[in-house]
Amino acid sequence: MTRAEAAHQAPASVVGRPQPFTGEEYAARLGRVQAAMAERSLAGLVVVDPANIHYLTGYNAWSFYTPQCLLVPADGLPHLFARSMDAQGARHTAYLDRHHVHGYPEHLVHRPDIHPFDWITDRAVELGLLTDTPDAQFAAETDAHFFSPRGYLALQARLTRAALVDSRELVNWVRVVKSPAEEEMLRAAGAIAQQVMLAALDAVAPGRRQCDVVADIQHAQALGSGGLGGDYPAIVPMLPTGESAGTPHLTWSDAPLALGEATTIELAGVYQRYHAPLARTVSLGQPPERLARCAEAVSEGMEAALEQLRPGSTGRAAHAAFTTVISRHGLTKESRIGYSIGIGYPPDWGERTVSLRAEDETELVAGMAFHVILGMWMDGWGYETSEPVIVGRDGAEQLTHLPRGLTVKA
Amino acid sequence: MTRAEAAHQAPASVVGRPQPFTGEEYAARLGRVQAAMAERSLAGLVVVDPANIHYLTGYNAWSFYTPQCLLVPADGLPHLFARSMDAQGARHTAYLDRHHVHGYPEHLVHRPDIHPFDWITDRAVELGLLTDTPDAQFAAETDAHFFSPRGYLALQARLTRAALVDSRELVNWVRVVKSPAEEEMLRAAGAIAQQVMLAALDAVAPGRRQCDVVADIQHAQALGSGGLGGDYPAIVPMLPTGESAGTPHLTWSDAPLALGEATTIELAGVYQRYHAPLARTVSLGQPPERLARCAEAVSEGMEAALEQLRPGSTGRAAHAAFTTVISRHGLTKESRIGYSIGIGYPPDWGERTVSLRAEDETELVAGMAFHVILGMWMDGWGYETSEPVIVGRDGAEQLTHLPRGLTVKA
Repeated sequence: MTRAEAAHQAPASVVGRPQPFTGEEYAARLGRVQAAMAERSLAGLVVVDPANIHYLTGYNAWSFYTPQCLLVPADGLPHLFARSMDAQGARHTAYLDRHHVHGYPEHLVHRPDIHPFDWITDRAVELGLLTDTPDAQFAAETDAHFFSPRGYLALQARLTRAALVDSRELVNWVRVVKSPAEEEMLRAAGAIAQQVMLAALDAVAPGRRQCDVVADIQHAQALGSGGLGGDYPAIVPMLPTGESAGTPHLTWSDAPLALGEATTIELAGVYQRYHAPLARTVSLGQPPERLARCAEAVSEGMEAALEQLRPGSTGRAAHAAFTTVISRHGLTKESRIGYSIGIGYPPDWGERTVSLRAEDETELVAGMAFHVILGMWMDGWGYETSEPVIVGRDGAEQLTHLPRGLTVKA
Repeated sequence: MTRAEAAHQAPASVVGRPQPFTGEEYAARLGRVQAAMAERSLAGLVVVDPANIHYLTGYNAWSFYTPQCLLVPADGLPHLFARSMDAQGARHTAYLDRHHVHGYPEHLVHRPDIHPFDWITDRAVELGLLTDTPDAQFAAETDAHFFSPRGYLALQARLTRAALVDSRELVNWVRVVKSPAEEEMLRAAGAIAQQVMLAALDAVAPGRRQCDVVADIQHAQALGSGGLGGDYPAIVPMLPTGESAGTPHLTWSDAPLALGEATTIELAGVYQRYHAPLARTVSLGQPPERLARCAEAVSEGMEAALEQLRPGSTGRAAHAAFTTVISRHGLTKESRIGYSIGIGYPPDWGERTVSLRAEDETELVAGMAFHVILGMWMDGWGYETSEPVIVGRDGAEQLTHLPRGLTVKA
């Protein structure tokens, strides 16, 4: 199948929904990746990040817990390698025909003596996708989740003469600028995120357990919004409470929420793998002065940061704008204030490319999307608020529209 | 802090709940790992699998999307290395004191030019945990999820004289036999799984969307059972339906369920990271003959497989017992019929050790736990049923107690 043929396999559109991606869009994505490969004289690219595989082929299944990869040649369609039982089902989601999907035998799964990447590498050599010649240079996604060293070493062992280099997130960087159809997916995700956060804010009450609130959040995440069903988030809902609100990334317990405590809530609305993450903080009862002041300062800082999310600006400028504001209020924040978003798979909904921080000089362009997340993790307390946005020609387009400050429930 | 001191940091027990693990239990786990290391003359072990880190220290956070590891020395307490913001919060879950937890600076996150494992390796050398001498041999979990090749190569680059070998899942193999306290966790997980499956079977109805059923499942998963709150599962609920029921690992859509279609449901009940996975199949309307017959054959096969899950038997024997039964009914199954379970983190709730399949000769002993999963993925249809069990002295102890066959809803 050629790229032109792939373009004819466009899925039918569904009325009232964001348009699924056309064959033309997949062809354009592949074209951009292969152009970037050509610039680096790459004969092939081993793609392991499930978000990158999905971006390039539509492939979508919870199969990334066993080794799999997409091999993108310098020219022509990519080849998907997966466990046999998953390869058989790839046609449900990927546009690739059966000649471009290869399943490794079941007996290779979870074996100490042999690795699926041994098989994948052999097959790729047979297919002519890997050529072990001194002039050939291949790249692999050496920092992708789900690409284990054992898999990498199996690949390296077969390339004794050819060079194997780091992809430096080549596909992730192609993903940074969204197409109009992707922007529609993000808007749908934003509508879901807003609905889910409303359910979460409603659910938080004294005496309810953290897991009860999560039950309501996850219910809302799957229901979706406006007739669009929700997809699963790359990260489970986080709601550190009370003293632990000073700690990011703690998952829930079944301890009850108490009056006088604040809870930071971070969740996402997800539509067809596109993520709109969103964070808010709820205080049960009147908040302590330090929390109320922090919330006000951070809201002001958010305005300043969003102002900078326009074409021609940088992540560095957005970070500087935020820190200038909060430093006037005597606050500091060491970690980044946001990152690029789009397609997400567990364990992360960030794209691992542009960060909003002092060290990032990437020029912002229209079509980028960010989660601007202002997490203030203090000693024994914390505050979080965030906005998912698309960089538009005239500035930041917010994907959700909820009051930004501290929610106080008496 | 010594092992004996660690033993004194036992968490307080909670009435009516499975006992949290004592300091003695953590000390015993570490002792078993270090004994296995001594057998292989390992000066240190780099543990990356979040389930292994949790098993050895109690550490539990959604922090595995950035590099982290536990360095277990030949003797003495292990050291945890994580992103600075996560290291600060480690005390909420891990028993390690601050001298055994090391946070790398925020600016190392998602950078193309430098990797957190560069910092981790340097710090481990400073601490004397890594020694680059010709007589030293270190092992790393080269097939763990979340250990990227880039991290591995940073470690390897610092060990120019010492040997760096594959851990061969050393900690996973120590985890295979559960303690009495762990068995209690699994029983709590089983009670939750049963509750969740009842909610799922109730939710499936013609016209309801797949995502509506998932909403109910996820709600029930977090609520838990009998006052015990549910924890998040390592894998999202799967419910391939109709033609796609022949495909494992497909996640849900917002398409409505239709009369005349069957849905296979796979989910887990989770208590404090311990998983009891469970699968059933529902037919909306009278099932076709082939599905009804398949369900009967598989139920008979399940009985035969469970018979073999007793001390002294093997995964090979369980697999053979199952295949003998179904082959009498003209059915075959290529893939394994089960795997070891316990602690789980995304993307997998299996332990990556013992499989119930022809190639596995591991002798079963009391305290092992398995998910016996009989997935029959046919061309355009499918059937699944499963049981999570503990291998007891007298045979398999089922963790759930639901009718095993096909559920028919008219």
